[in-house]
Amino acid sequence: MRPVVVLGYGMMPVDEHWNLSLRELAGNAALSALENAGTPPIDAIFIGNMMSGTANHQQHLGAYLADWIGMPMVEAVRIEAACASGAATFRAGLMAVASGEADSVLVTAAEKMTDSPSDEISAELATAADADWEVETGISFVGLNALLMQRYMHEYGWTKEHFAPFSINAHANGARNPNARFQKEIGLATYMNAAMVAPPINIMDASPVGDGAAACVLMAADMASHFSQNAIIEVAASASATDSLAVHDRNDALWLNAAYRSAIDAYSQAALSPAEIDLFELHDAFSIMAALSLEAAGFTERGSAPRMALDGEIGLLGRLPIATMGGLKARGHPVGATGMYQIAEVVQQLMHEAGKNQVDGARIGMAQNIGGSGSNILTHILRRVDL
Amino acid sequence: MRPVVVLGYGMMPVDEHWNLSLRELAGNAALSALENAGTPPIDAIFIGNMMSGTANHQQHLGAYLADWIGMPMVEAVRIEAACASGAATFRAGLMAVASGEADSVLVTAAEKMTDSPSDEISAELATAADADWEVETGISFVGLNALLMQRYMHEYGWTKEHFAPFSINAHANGARNPNARFQKEIGLATYMNAAMVAPPINIMDASPVGDGAAACVLMAADMASHFSQNAIIEVAASASATDSLAVHDRNDALWLNAAYRSAIDAYSQAALSPAEIDLFELHDAFSIMAALSLEAAGFTERGSAPRMALDGEIGLLGRLPIATMGGLKARGHPVGATGMYQIAEVVQQLMHEAGKNQVDGARIGMAQNIGGSGSNILTHILRRVDL
Repeated sequence: MRPVVVLGYGMMPVDEHWNLSLRELAGNAALSALENAGTPPIDAIFIGNMMSGTANHQQHLGAYLADWIGMPMVEAVRIEAACASGAATFRAGLMAVASGEADSVLVTAAEKMTDSPSDEISAELATAADADWEVETGISFVGLNALLMQRYMHEYGWTKEHFAPFSINAHANGARNPNARFQKEIGLATYMNAAMVAPPINIMDASPVGDGAAACVLMAADMASHFSQNAIIEVAASASATDSLAVHDRNDALWLNAAYRSAIDAYSQAALSPAEIDLFELHDAFSIMAALSLEAAGFTERGSAPRMALDGEIGLLGRLPIATMGGLKARGHPVGATGMYQIAEVVQQLMHEAGKNQVDGARIGMAQNIGGSGSNILTHILRRVDL
Repeated sequence: MRPVVVLGYGMMPVDEHWNLSLRELAGNAALSALENAGTPPIDAIFIGNMMSGTANHQQHLGAYLADWIGMPMVEAVRIEAACASGAATFRAGLMAVASGEADSVLVTAAEKMTDSPSDEISAELATAADADWEVETGISFVGLNALLMQRYMHEYGWTKEHFAPFSINAHANGARNPNARFQKEIGLATYMNAAMVAPPINIMDASPVGDGAAACVLMAADMASHFSQNAIIEVAASASATDSLAVHDRNDALWLNAAYRSAIDAYSQAALSPAEIDLFELHDAFSIMAALSLEAAGFTERGSAPRMALDGEIGLLGRLPIATMGGLKARGHPVGATGMYQIAEVVQQLMHEAGKNQVDGARIGMAQNIGGSGSNILTHILRRVDL
């Protein structure tokens, strides 16, 4: 594959942006990334989004964004893979550059959710599950995850309080990230006493929706020297795999096979082992998903992810910092945009621009984005190379 | 770019498929293409669709299709570019192979529209236009196209009856295509007396919606020899361009600039001139769009497309056969799937499998797919190479 680098990134704070339209939200992130990248020429635009057709009565976001940011002739298309739309968009842009069809691309992902009633948003989120065999029964995403968490606790003997460190860590990191939806630390009491959503998941296990947009600029490595200064951020690996759409079709509901497969593919591409990853932006839409991701990606044995968290290994000073800017739990989960936030935050860390949340000397970062209940999972590894 | 060939194609008849779900519709086209291609291994799946989120309460179609056709681990993602989703999906798959990230891919596009009330479908189609500045005024797609057709008639002096040959030709070709929504010839009287929709557009100027799915299998040319028999179908060119989302933002509403730009880019890639194209599957969603496409793609002077049609140049025996299997007008326009039908029909012609509609000795075919009112246009050129 033709080597590709990330030249720049941009992020809007995840919030209730009632004064910004979807085009402004996406456009601001895109323009911020372009400025951060040194305003290179752009050959193509990819935009990730899940629900603008209903939430904003607007599809066709490729032409929509290209037009709005003043590039009305540039090739542009939308990518959708439910909650994995963000990383899928990054990967589509990567393939465009790697193929030689483009030398540089803008990859953006945006979601504007807070203008719609929450029952509409819940129904729209459910379109990521199997309409015929899951949604038809009345189960929601939080319900599916609650069943997984119950089963996990049953199989491995953990209790609810053992999941607290995932949420506490995310909030501690989000408290120091100006782009985070929740910039407030929490303690064990807050976690344990939070309102129940679907037992054992309470609101401190569940990530919040929000309006958000993030973007990156990708360029062929051999053309990027003009735009790079003291370091370059290489795309060391990009991998994607699917699993059955419905959870009940899996032999083992507690094993995220698509996470495992995309992770081992990524390690192979980058010629790295899990031990060499300096930070991991994982898809902690629910606490249980954080645990399952850590296990499937090979960072700990099956059933032992809460141990890793309880031992402090996931903090900024730990063996494997996760959710370093707050994760889905505290930075927020604007669904179609989330995967792009994860990658932009890895870039931010590798550029050593993460402020008070900087992982000291970070060189290799990984992001894993999950669509549906583990049905579509992408893993990216980025590497800093000092010049 | 790494050379890519089309190994096989599959199409479902465009119809009211009330007995097939979206997964069956898409799956049947995909399995048909895989069988036609000689069932090669598949590394990735791309699926185009515009409105399943509302019409079928199902998004996340990548994992959905991969799961259904028995490839639950394969990378899969959905592509959306409004009515240009089909060709955009073909191009995304092409880039995956060209980049080396995949050696062979399945590209499918599907739309299931007839289960929903027509007012919902009209509202969903409108998400391809500018929600803030076009849809807000109450105008529909047929309304926008009616304004364009009126202006065209005013500028160039044509009357409504001069557009009849586009519809008559499409119906003549559709009458002999078992996959066509309307398999019935029409004459001038039927055209002139048809029910008016938005003057001057009547129902014989407007393409019908429908349920449909089409698919192709792409493979790196250097790996395809094992699967090819007496001829290979090369992707000679793939190009994409956008224009302003809203028609009123264009300096010249009668010039499809994105069609022009993607066409000249495609001619350049293939090292061909318009005169060398043996057939052209154009986006005749409305008669006026057929005319504007012919002009922007360089087949005739501005304002002269009705002349070309009146002179019989667009028929199967003419200088440039168009809508050879019925086009959007008679084969039907299942929006997100249409662009894939166009390409599959070009492949069918180049494989010399078009039956009674075969363009004699067809070697080079072009397809042009339009999203919105000319906002996102892709042009593909395919070439037959005898072995």
